[in-house]
Amino acid sequence: MVDAVVILVVEDDQLIQAIIEEALSDSGFEASITASGEEAIALLRAEKSPYRAVVTDINLLGKIDGWDVARAARETNPAMPVIYMTGTHGEEWASQGVPNSVLLAKPFAPAQLVTAISHLLNATLPTAATE
Amino acid sequence: MVDAVVILVVEDDQLIQAIIEEALSDSGFEASITASGEEAIALLRAEKSPYRAVVTDINLLGKIDGWDVARAARETNPAMPVIYMTGTHGEEWASQGVPNSVLLAKPFAPAQLVTAISHLLNATLPTAATE
Amino acid sequence: MVDAVVILVVEDDQLIQAIIEEALSDSGFEASITASGEEAIALLRAEKSPYRAVVTDINLLGKIDGWDVARAARETNPAMPVIYMTGTHGEEWASQGVPNSVLLAKPFAPAQLVTAISHLLNATLPTAATE
Amino acid sequence: MVDAVVILVVEDDQLIQAIIEEALSDSGFEASITASGEEAIALLRAEKSPYRAVVTDINLLGKIDGWDVARAARETNPAMPVIYMTGTHGEEWASQGVPNSVLLAKPFAPAQLVTAISHLLNATLPTAATE
Amino acid sequence: MVDAVVILVVEDDQLIQAIIEEALSDSGFEASITASGEEAIALLRAEKSPYRAVVTDINLLGKIDGWDVARAARETNPAMPVIYMTGTHGEEWASQGVPNSVLLAKPFAPAQLVTAISHLLNATLPTAATE
Amino acid sequence: MVDAVVILVVEDDQLIQAIIEEALSDSGFEASITASGEEAIALLRAEKSPYRAVVTDINLLGKIDGWDVARAARETNPAMPVIYMTGTHGEEWASQGVPNSVLLAKPFAPAQLVTAISHLLNATLPTAATE
Repeated sequence: MVDAVVILVVEDDQLIQAIIEEALSDSGFEASITASGEEAIALLRAEKSPYRAVVTDINLLGKIDGWDVARAARETNPAMPVIYMTGTHGEEWASQGVPNSVLLAKPFAPAQLVTAISHLLNATLPTAATE
Repeated sequence: MVDAVVILVVEDDQLIQAIIEEALSDSGFEASITASGEEAIALLRAEKSPYRAVVTDINLLGKIDGWDVARAARETNPAMPVIYMTGTHGEEWASQGVPNSVLLAKPFAPAQLVTAISHLLNATLPTAATE
Repeated sequence: MVDAVVILVVEDDQLIQAIIEEALSDSGFEASITASGEEAIALLRAEKSPYRAVVTDINLLGKIDGWDVARAARETNPAMPVIYMTGTHGEEWASQGVPNSVLLAKPFAPAQLVTAISHLLNATLPTAATE
Repeated sequence: MVDAVVILVVEDDQLIQAIIEEALSDSGFEASITASGEEAIALLRAEKSPYRAVVTDINLLGKIDGWDVARAARETNPAMPVIYMTGTHGEEWASQGVPNSVLLAKPFAPAQLVTAISHLLNATLPTAATE
Repeated sequence: MVDAVVILVVEDDQLIQAIIEEALSDSGFEASITASGEEAIALLRAEKSPYRAVVTDINLLGKIDGWDVARAARETNPAMPVIYMTGTHGEEWASQGVPNSVLLAKPFAPAQLVTAISHLLNATLPTAATE
Repeated sequence: MVDAVVILVVEDDQLIQAIIEEALSDSGFEASITASGEEAIALLRAEKSPYRAVVTDINLLGKIDGWDVARAARETNPAMPVIYMTGTHGEEWASQGVPNSVLLAKPFAPAQLVTAISHLLNATLPTAATE
């Protein structure tokens, strides 16, 4: 509390960006939003990266898709909570997703996203978080 | 997001109807409310039924109780999330409830209902959801 | 619903007290706040104690710390949901915490606390709650 | 250990009876076998009934099927572990099964049954078991 | 029971092959063993493939590693239980593994493998298995 | 596999020692048995301690009981799997036990112990195991 819990959101639809930003802000999280998978990976690999969870669309504008963003996030931090959002690629999650991730099939309510982030953050072992 | 996530609520107390409607609406869900178990089952069996989860009181006015509503919902859709609400019938859940359901004992806070719905929806396997 | 779901909060920082109180109130819970572990244990042991969950900081002002508060709560009610909050003692949870508890490492978002309380309350077996 | 952990098995196929009896015995359980749902329910309702878990086929010879046996077991003891076995009725589990039960679709290996029984017994809350 | 539950094992060390084969056989499973990832994928994609779960080493002799075998298995059957075995690649599981899989770090006891297979098979939703 | 997975067993009843030793050995584990809590803690704190899990009775002969042994084990290794065995102290687990532990109430079948150890070992995050 008091300090920010920053969530990296990778999404190129501006309407959905706005809905997510409001839902996270109302719940006490701080959203950091990018539309590009390439930029997301650069942000995750930067030194002293502040992100505590990654929320990513599967279809992104460049060559990098959401499955790639999640793998890069986990290579940097094996305990990083990952939430995928998709309207059409749900059936690929079982082969392309990372373990202990959540897939939200659009349409979903903002509360589902907030619950998924909170649940994954709360389940992170404290010993892992402090090592 | 954007499109509605519709929750079927079966409850005959108007005060509780209003509290649930507000809690779901604030969380980004859309509540569809009926006081009758018979009507609930008809709505669930209708073609192109839009309901993504069922929230039901146990005691209902007609011959159909909440245990029946949940069984009918699962016969139509074996993956349907089910939440029971009750002040007095909690001890019957272990014999009368359906698997992977949640029982909320009254009194409960609106956040408990929102968390239960979100958690059950998020745990639905995406492969099941897309088939 | 309608009746209050009272959460005992043990925390001596007034700013965090205020944030928690607002988060719980917005979610439909009622917070009962004390800064003292000794007082918390007395409240938990009182007859007809109304508390449905305990949220406690680890570092408290007196001789009693949050680990002690949680053990006392569970001695009174073995099913009592327990959430610890800490900025520095996370690594002790695995040896000092009680089973089926959640540790929130500061900083955390208010939604994480609400989700943790709701999740633990919802997971309480109804048969246990009615005995 | 030392004392017996008795499992009630409801199954009318003699070959499967023998396989289950051997698997349970090799794992340190004691199997008590009946082919009749009516007899199973009478045994479960008897005073000082020794059964710690119920394993039941869905299709039984009389009017009582495995879904009925499980509900009767839970009415007597809401925490009773329940495992269903079936070759053809798996799709009904979501509407006819009891909560926190396991369905084993035939064919299954004996180790799956032993693991299911052990897992359900180990997950029973000790506070519930001692009350 | 009676019919075989066939597990595809992908492992090139003959000693470990023998230990796994005995452990699975003693538990009532039937092991089908190959040392090649390429052959494993061909077997999984064959019509009327009998495999109910995949157990794979990460390091394999050819160009295909265990991460690839698991993704191919899930593309064919999104609900296929997957268990990885490795002495050195555990840290890659969080980015390279598939969801709902188990990683066994060598050395492990045969009972851990049997429990992991049983647990994943038992957790497969029956509705998914019958669709 | 091949190398031993050593389980520290703290138990003073020689009959139960023998049953546990056989059950663990049959399952491919190696049991290291002591009757003393003091010795157990010394073994756990020794350099290059080989123990992968702790199984402890609650009542022990000296001043140290099983609750103390488990806390000491977790202080040395926060991810150590812990299983308690008891005939009479089950109701204290909720206040005296460590998180993510299992309590086996006597009498229990040997398969329950093997499943509990396997399940806790398999649930250990591989990233934690390799750090």
